Amino acid sequence: MTKTPDSAVRSYIDQHEAEFLEDLSAWLRIPSVSADPGRAGEVRRSAEWLVAKLRETGFPVAEVWESDGLPAVFAEWPSGDASAPTVLVYGHHDVQPAAKEDGWATEPFEPTRIGRQLFARGAADDKGQVFFHTLGVRAHLAATGRTAPAVNLKLLIEGEEESGSPNFGALIRREAARLAADVVIISDTGMWAEDTPTVCTGMRGLADCEIDFYGPANDIHSGSFGGAVPNPADVAASLVAALHDADRRVAIPGFYDGIVELTEQERELFAELPFDEQQWLKVAKSGGTLGEAGYSTLERVWARPTAEVNGIWGGYTGPGQKTIVPAEAHVKLSFRLVAGQEVENVRKLVRDWVATRIPEGIRYDIAFPGATRPCLTPLDHPALQSTVRAMGRAFGQKILFTREGGSGPAADLQDVLGAPVLFLGISVPSDGWHSVNEKVELDLLRKGVETSAYLWGDLAENWQ
Amino acid sequence: MTKTPDSAVRSYIDQHEAEFLEDLSAWLRIPSVSADPGRAGEVRRSAEWLVAKLRETGFPVAEVWESDGLPAVFAEWPSGDASAPTVLVYGHHDVQPAAKEDGWATEPFEPTRIGRQLFARGAADDKGQVFFHTLGVRAHLAATGRTAPAVNLKLLIEGEEESGSPNFGALIRREAARLAADVVIISDTGMWAEDTPTVCTGMRGLADCEIDFYGPANDIHSGSFGGAVPNPADVAASLVAALHDADRRVAIPGFYDGIVELTEQERELFAELPFDEQQWLKVAKSGGTLGEAGYSTLERVWARPTAEVNGIWGGYTGPGQKTIVPAEAHVKLSFRLVAGQEVENVRKLVRDWVATRIPEGIRYDIAFPGATRPCLTPLDHPALQSTVRAMGRAFGQKILFTREGGSGPAADLQDVLGAPVLFLGISVPSDGWHSVNEKVELDLLRKGVETSAYLWGDLAENWQ
Ligand SMILES: [Zn+2]
Ligand SMILES: [Zn+2]
Repeated sequence: MTKTPDSAVRSYIDQHEAEFLEDLSAWLRIPSVSADPGRAGEVRRSAEWLVAKLRETGFPVAEVWESDGLPAVFAEWPSGDASAPTVLVYGHHDVQPAAKEDGWATEPFEPTRIGRQLFARGAADDKGQVFFHTLGVRAHLAATGRTAPAVNLKLLIEGEEESGSPNFGALIRREAARLAADVVIISDTGMWAEDTPTVCTGMRGLADCEIDFYGPANDIHSGSFGGAVPNPADVAASLVAALHDADRRVAIPGFYDGIVELTEQERELFAELPFDEQQWLKVAKSGGTLGEAGYSTLERVWARPTAEVNGIWGGYTGPGQKTIVPAEAHVKLSFRLVAGQEVENVRKLVRDWVATRIPEGIRYDIAFPGATRPCLTPLDHPALQSTVRAMGRAFGQKILFTREGGSGPAADLQDVLGAPVLFLGISVPSDGWHSVNEKVELDLLRKGVETSAYLWGDLAENWQ
Repeated sequence: MTKTPDSAVRSYIDQHEAEFLEDLSAWLRIPSVSADPGRAGEVRRSAEWLVAKLRETGFPVAEVWESDGLPAVFAEWPSGDASAPTVLVYGHHDVQPAAKEDGWATEPFEPTRIGRQLFARGAADDKGQVFFHTLGVRAHLAATGRTAPAVNLKLLIEGEEESGSPNFGALIRREAARLAADVVIISDTGMWAEDTPTVCTGMRGLADCEIDFYGPANDIHSGSFGGAVPNPADVAASLVAALHDADRRVAIPGFYDGIVELTEQERELFAELPFDEQQWLKVAKSGGTLGEAGYSTLERVWARPTAEVNGIWGGYTGPGQKTIVPAEAHVKLSFRLVAGQEVENVRKLVRDWVATRIPEGIRYDIAFPGATRPCLTPLDHPALQSTVRAMGRAFGQKILFTREGGSGPAADLQDVLGAPVLFLGISVPSDGWHSVNEKVELDLLRKGVETSAYLWGDLAENWQ
């Protein structure tokens, strides 16, 4: 097993870091705010800038891809090795809105270096993280003497992520053939902390559910009728209450069937993370924890499915009192899903369970507006092992694992391309995503470059 | 035992009915709408008109009583018999708003007789029912040859009942000495049906409760935190759901302690009422019944305490989805109470019960904005027995019993005066209270006069 010589990678990065930061700064100067229709031209300029830069990097294919919204960028650099695996790197080139008046210490679209930090909107989310792959692949080639990467390298850099990726699903379905890959690497996430490098291995899925409950044809007097007719607000509340048993497990029959349980190894590795529950509660702004019995807080948010009431309303909600049996009530629920749970099956379980819980005299409508599938890459997956080794070499430290409790378009890639997804991000919680004074840590950015430089060779060698 | 000769009463009424209806019509022409500030003068004119009419009737005392709002009328006619009981009749001279444009077939303040019905705002609620006592007492005197009634007769005719009686409690507390009575008769209710004369024996009480639940300091992301922190909307819903057990009994410990249970006799008499549940459901506009196991629908609404959720809200309630753990949630509850339940005790039980059901990380405020005590007169109370006999003579039929599921100022009189309250009303459900085309049935109005004429003698004879 030959390894990319680490010292060669490092000296190549040393030589090119200044130029790399200058290029990144040029890109950060383009205010590619996808949420602002007035800046659609800037998003396009950002895409075109990136295409030119990727060609300059050496990608033989680099294109602006049109969608029904703002443009994405696609690039491809075939390995030339017949047995080489294909890797698709995902990121985005659009950014959140930002203005100095919001409280920035520097101009958000004038990248400003202060010590080993570079401040600019998009520095961490996500231009910096996309960009480390450009110097990474060149360092990989320089250190190995190759003229093409050891893997078939594809990049897909979206232009509407900060606007909810409204056209992303359609785009990747349309281009599924050209996007075909053995593994997807998402570079749009973060690590546990600067001194605790981690790889994220999955995200929870999400299934939304809305239920409308209808009782009397209009609000009726609770003096005349109360105690003898069903109350839709009571039925709604009872349904929400019945979602959980006394152990805070979701009480819908079959809900946990077939889920991929945490392995002992994952639980042990999660437990190695320097987790401070009091600090976590401060971030959550919650006065206490509550969740499924038998699981830690991190396990609960990362690896366990949930049922959550996001909204409930019915009856009189103004000042004072109205003694009514309300005509209707409504709930918005969402279910976080983990690997092994199929959206359609969960919907059926919810539907069946609700149907058994409605008293005579209450009508209801149930709808499932949206869903995102969960994704999870097992710890022993070769691509994940390669990523961990590449990061380990860059960081000189043991790499631990995290997951994301939220849900995202990563699952779309997993589903459409049929490839495992993993998350290589070097951002840290202090980077100020979607906030003022967004920055990237230059030392971490460099470690991202290094990881990328080691990764392709390792992946190619260890792919079976 | 000498009885008021029924034929003498009837012939007296025959002689005076035309004049009686003319007088009532004159009163109905006064648009004494208490809710309309522009008609405050009309409410006063109505009070003054009534004082004059009561003096003409023979009441030695008849006065306008000022309150902090609109005026009431008080009248008193002492019996002269040392052992005579004192009866206070309650009614009101203000009316609901009405305008021909609302859909009336006739002018609401121009009383119109069509066959044996008299149409006008206030015809049934409540001028007609107050007024039958004037001809009633004169028929009582005429038939018995007395110059003063057999009981010490007092009338209190309120001027703000249709505006929620905001000053009634203060008024009766201020005038408690002059209002002192052995029994209170409320003539502001109805009977079961035209062919089913009934006396109402009680009203449920009411205790309102508002609870605010606070979780995270603001809405937080359910992807990042869901499943590991308590959700105030879930806590609110769980509390509402826990209000009832599987038998739909209120599950708050001690809630039923000390309540006056229905007697077998009451249940049998309730069961004699020609109750059509399908028809009742149409009026309730409900698709089904649901209530405490072991009780009929009428028993549930008349004689059983309840817990009702009148409003619930929390989290995101707009279109689409927001995957949040909401910062707060709120419920408005009301408890209907029956005799034997003390408001303060119920509040304490609710407070104690809620306190045991709040998980760590949720703060809450609980408030009890208002309450009305229940009232109930037992079937064997002598005043109720007298009323039933008097009605029985007027109607020539067995008199059955009802209760009111709602709550009203009657309980104030019961509490302040320390006297049992019963309900003598001759209105029927088709009379259109608070609606268009309000009317009174002249045959029933006449039976009200007759009942009143028989009642005072019977009460005086059977009072111990
Ligand atoms: Zn991003
Ligand atoms: Zn009334």
